[in-house]
Amino acid sequence: MKRRQFLAAGATAAVAAPIASPAIAQSAPSVRWRLVSAFPKSLDTLYGGSVELARRVSEATDGQFQIQPFAAGEIVPGGAAVIDATSKNTVECCHTCSYYGIGIDPTFAFGTCVPFGPNARQTNAWLTVGGGNDVLNEFYAKHNLYALPAGNTGVQMGGWFRKEINTVEDLKGIKFRVGGLAGNVLLKLGVVPQQIGGGDLYSSLERGTIDAAEWTGPYDDEKLGLYRVAKYYYYPGWWDQGTVISMMINRAKWDELPARYKAVLSNACAATNQWMQAKYDHENPIALKRVVAAGAILRPFSPAIMEASFKATQQTYDEINASNPTFKKILGEVMAYRDATSLWWQVSELPYDINIANLIRRAR
Amino acid sequence: MKRRQFLAAGATAAVAAPIASPAIAQSAPSVRWRLVSAFPKSLDTLYGGSVELARRVSEATDGQFQIQPFAAGEIVPGGAAVIDATSKNTVECCHTCSYYGIGIDPTFAFGTCVPFGPNARQTNAWLTVGGGNDVLNEFYAKHNLYALPAGNTGVQMGGWFRKEINTVEDLKGIKFRVGGLAGNVLLKLGVVPQQIGGGDLYSSLERGTIDAAEWTGPYDDEKLGLYRVAKYYYYPGWWDQGTVISMMINRAKWDELPARYKAVLSNACAATNQWMQAKYDHENPIALKRVVAAGAILRPFSPAIMEASFKATQQTYDEINASNPTFKKILGEVMAYRDATSLWWQVSELPYDINIANLIRRAR
Repeated sequence: MKRRQFLAAGATAAVAAPIASPAIAQSAPSVRWRLVSAFPKSLDTLYGGSVELARRVSEATDGQFQIQPFAAGEIVPGGAAVIDATSKNTVECCHTCSYYGIGIDPTFAFGTCVPFGPNARQTNAWLTVGGGNDVLNEFYAKHNLYALPAGNTGVQMGGWFRKEINTVEDLKGIKFRVGGLAGNVLLKLGVVPQQIGGGDLYSSLERGTIDAAEWTGPYDDEKLGLYRVAKYYYYPGWWDQGTVISMMINRAKWDELPARYKAVLSNACAATNQWMQAKYDHENPIALKRVVAAGAILRPFSPAIMEASFKATQQTYDEINASNPTFKKILGEVMAYRDATSLWWQVSELPYDINIANLIRRAR
Repeated sequence: MKRRQFLAAGATAAVAAPIASPAIAQSAPSVRWRLVSAFPKSLDTLYGGSVELARRVSEATDGQFQIQPFAAGEIVPGGAAVIDATSKNTVECCHTCSYYGIGIDPTFAFGTCVPFGPNARQTNAWLTVGGGNDVLNEFYAKHNLYALPAGNTGVQMGGWFRKEINTVEDLKGIKFRVGGLAGNVLLKLGVVPQQIGGGDLYSSLERGTIDAAEWTGPYDDEKLGLYRVAKYYYYPGWWDQGTVISMMINRAKWDELPARYKAVLSNACAATNQWMQAKYDHENPIALKRVVAAGAILRPFSPAIMEASFKATQQTYDEINASNPTFKKILGEVMAYRDATSLWWQVSELPYDINIANLIRRAR
């Protein structure tokens, strides 16, 4: 819909155009949306993404399209509640990991990431150019939602463990705070998955109620102080290997936006998507050095643990696939994308990053 | 500058507001810019970035801010000429690798990438959150320019060689089409750098006028047909390891844009920055398989060649630093950023990508 409004000459002349004539006046409906973030304000990168997004939209419309972010708990709790509130039009939109909705349908996971899926850049490629976001929105439409990627953490850490995990056997009986599909996968390896909010992780680890906890990466984890109560910091977080944060919008609210505001919002989401990744890529290296200096001990998951986790992931997928054809279809597409991309990665990003790591080390 | 224009009630009522009242009419000066791309239309990802950018700006302003892209050669030739034309206000803006301007000042390289610098995501982090873009714009201001990142190729390939290059000795006397600072570096290793346009690479390789040529990556290289005349395809391209394409704007033109259009343009550049990376990440894996199927033989540069190149790069930097304090200052910042980020990469992206490559291989 084109809504250019050519006004009477008198009104046009009153517009102070700093650059060029003709200046026209554009129809600029006042739109006020409430956004519920799945995250608390203390997570200034995750919650900060919604602030960044709202700022970009407001500035690109001279304040006519305003999105007001609310932190988790202010209107609704975080997690699946923000998706539900958006779906039901309690609020117009939310900024969240779609995978908080896997209790509704495991298919919600693909909007964020799934265990052993493509990394952040590969996921962006699938969503942005490979048709992935259209595939997701076909599914979201059934839940009255429209979504755009608007943030990413990159590869997260595998979590804080109170003792070393050297073998697959060592995982047995470990009470591990881990969310989503990874919990289902790790259950197959004897782990006892725990659901505990971020605010309780420190005390749970300190008291030994749990043995391990994963959150995101060094920058966010540091704020929880986990390095003081569980010093082994494992990597990589194979279940959060390019975690997308989505702008999810009530479908009717999206549909009724003027085309110009849709464009503004799409651009702002893409810009925020990039900003959040950049913010994490900037902060995590600094925070990693601090937590290591404070006593964190970095440990890779062993190849055997990675292999066992990979196989248990496939079993988990087979189980979901058996009863969920939409999940099966999208999983096939996502994993084919990952596989097709991996060869390219092995002659581009990977060898460059490996060489740089070695060259810097030898040059010291 | 806020330019909200509250019109008389009669005019406001005439605006068809599909969503909410009050609708106001915004001052929307008509801005028409000409953009000169450094790239030909056949490079639909590099040139396509300017089209994508222009589309995003237009849609977010209902066509009131229009940027018309011109391919290399249409108004000015590609390369440094587009930067010069923008600096002199022959055109309002260009979409280019800033490093085409290193003949003016080697400092122009940092807006794109420098040999053995940070990778694409790390560069984005430096530019977007780490203050890098402000540092660059301080320098650009001396050339009447303002720039925003608006595209990236990721790690490029190291080029097509007619024979295998196994040792540092094998590089001696090789006539290699390679641009920019990499040419200076490789000269120290006995390479004879050649400057040849993309359109002449095929025939030069076929006739043996040159022994090797680098362009970008599989998707672009395939179009030139280089795999038919030089089958050894080396990696990684350590001089183009996260090549930024910049939107460079004549400073006065940027300064006089209304705040809203600055915001629209900034968002569109960030969105395009992400789009181009996604497009390459989508297309390169597919094209890589095609060129390999057509006979290309993938070869890594040996550790010894990488090490010798790394050392020769440092010598090159030392020489430039000796007479160019701005280059020296920014180089120090960029390389400190790379080093600080490398440890984080080694516990996040790298181990994940390595594991995935191995797990996929073993699962087959």
